[in-house]
Amino acid sequence: MKIIGEKINGTRSQVRKAVLERDAETIAALARAQADSGAAWIDVNAGTPADREPEDLVWLVRTVQAAVDVPLCLDSANPAALAAALEEVRKPPLVNSISGERARLEGVLPLAARAADGVIALAMDDQGIPGSAEGRLAIIRRLLQATRAAGIPDEHVYVDPLVMSVATNSDSARVALATLRAARAEFPGVHFTSGLSNVSFGLPARSLINRAFLILMLEAGLDTAILDPLDRELRKALLAAEVVLGLDRHCLAYTRAFRAGLLE
Amino acid sequence: MKIIGEKINGTRSQVRKAVLERDAETIAALARAQADSGAAWIDVNAGTPADREPEDLVWLVRTVQAAVDVPLCLDSANPAALAAALEEVRKPPLVNSISGERARLEGVLPLAARAADGVIALAMDDQGIPGSAEGRLAIIRRLLQATRAAGIPDEHVYVDPLVMSVATNSDSARVALATLRAARAEFPGVHFTSGLSNVSFGLPARSLINRAFLILMLEAGLDTAILDPLDRELRKALLAAEVVLGLDRHCLAYTRAFRAGLLE
Repeated sequence: MKIIGEKINGTRSQVRKAVLERDAETIAALARAQADSGAAWIDVNAGTPADREPEDLVWLVRTVQAAVDVPLCLDSANPAALAAALEEVRKPPLVNSISGERARLEGVLPLAARAADGVIALAMDDQGIPGSAEGRLAIIRRLLQATRAAGIPDEHVYVDPLVMSVATNSDSARVALATLRAARAEFPGVHFTSGLSNVSFGLPARSLINRAFLILMLEAGLDTAILDPLDRELRKALLAAEVVLGLDRHCLAYTRAFRAGLLE
Repeated sequence: MKIIGEKINGTRSQVRKAVLERDAETIAALARAQADSGAAWIDVNAGTPADREPEDLVWLVRTVQAAVDVPLCLDSANPAALAAALEEVRKPPLVNSISGERARLEGVLPLAARAADGVIALAMDDQGIPGSAEGRLAIIRRLLQATRAAGIPDEHVYVDPLVMSVATNSDSARVALATLRAARAEFPGVHFTSGLSNVSFGLPARSLINRAFLILMLEAGLDTAILDPLDRELRKALLAAEVVLGLDRHCLAYTRAFRAGLLE
């Protein structure tokens, strides 16, 4: 499982404040901590109004790149911000994200096709997020038609089946799992990712719920996850699940983590 | 998920000593602790040589029944011990276990059919435990033929797909999961159970591995598990997985556990 570190997100108050005040050290520390914890990409989301987002996202890109060597995941629905950020990246990034929403497809997909290493594709469109796996699969089919038409090979597409909170709909995680299994069977060449933490929104002890969901998504075929790499319990659960599912050859990563004291 | 409490097992040195010394208080304390932690059955396994096992198992049955009101799971392959124990039980117990092994089928199945509330059926025979899900499914088919022929309704049969350690074979858990899914599709009326802890034999931080496996088995259709109900982390993982899979209506059990401080 590859990890996209989620912590540099302007919807978090600490990050929002750092962006507005150009507090580079706070951002750099978040980037370093996530890279040290194994993040393969660092997500950067400015979360500021559209008129200033290009400038803010460029500042985030420069600040994170000054701190770590890990590629970025540019997290914006704003074509102007993405275009500006893509001029700054030193390594081809992921673009987070396109969806079946017309504005995103028309505005973001051409940028991703031209300059990104991969694009995250959300199973939703202008009508919202379908309640059924079949509805989401229909959107995923249209998204793959669009990425292929734009010249993006399937192995550069990261489909997110989307998960809603189980607090409001007890079927939410099962629908995400079913969407993932069906899409993986139909599109074996694409990657699958998920922003996990929505699943536990509104519930207490959220990390416990996130862990159980991550383990189940891994079995269903998730190969990339957007999560907090500093959540030690989540990383322990992931290491254990990789052993159980035969994804950790000779249990090497697990026993190495144990010897390093990371499983305590 | 219903729990069979596994702690009163003569292979554990504390229990072995208590059985040999007729230390009723140790056994009663283990029974009470497991019942208080939600065990639906208390497994009793004397683990002593065949010639004294009937007497030891009867003592265990009497001792546990004096302490708790929960039904028992009589854990022996010895027909003489099971027959003696079945004379003592106050509530119809589970019998643990039959398998495709000829001696068990001939010796244990008639006793289970006559006096038990259910019987655990292991996916192995005189040739051992098949390495493939197909091989185990073939045994499960023969076991169901035998239980039906003995007049046991499917809903009183608890099939255990068996899991070996992932330390020696990285495919072990996947084979157990595949066996469970296939058997459940073919025999929707039976229960499915698993002695989970084998999966982590020989590995460090075993509880982490057991937790991940329990979550995956729950999704695959496990409805009963043989485990240590005093393992708080395992119970937390199970409560979270039940929420994720929509098995905890309105998240009531989870939020109740949170308010009781059990998720900390």
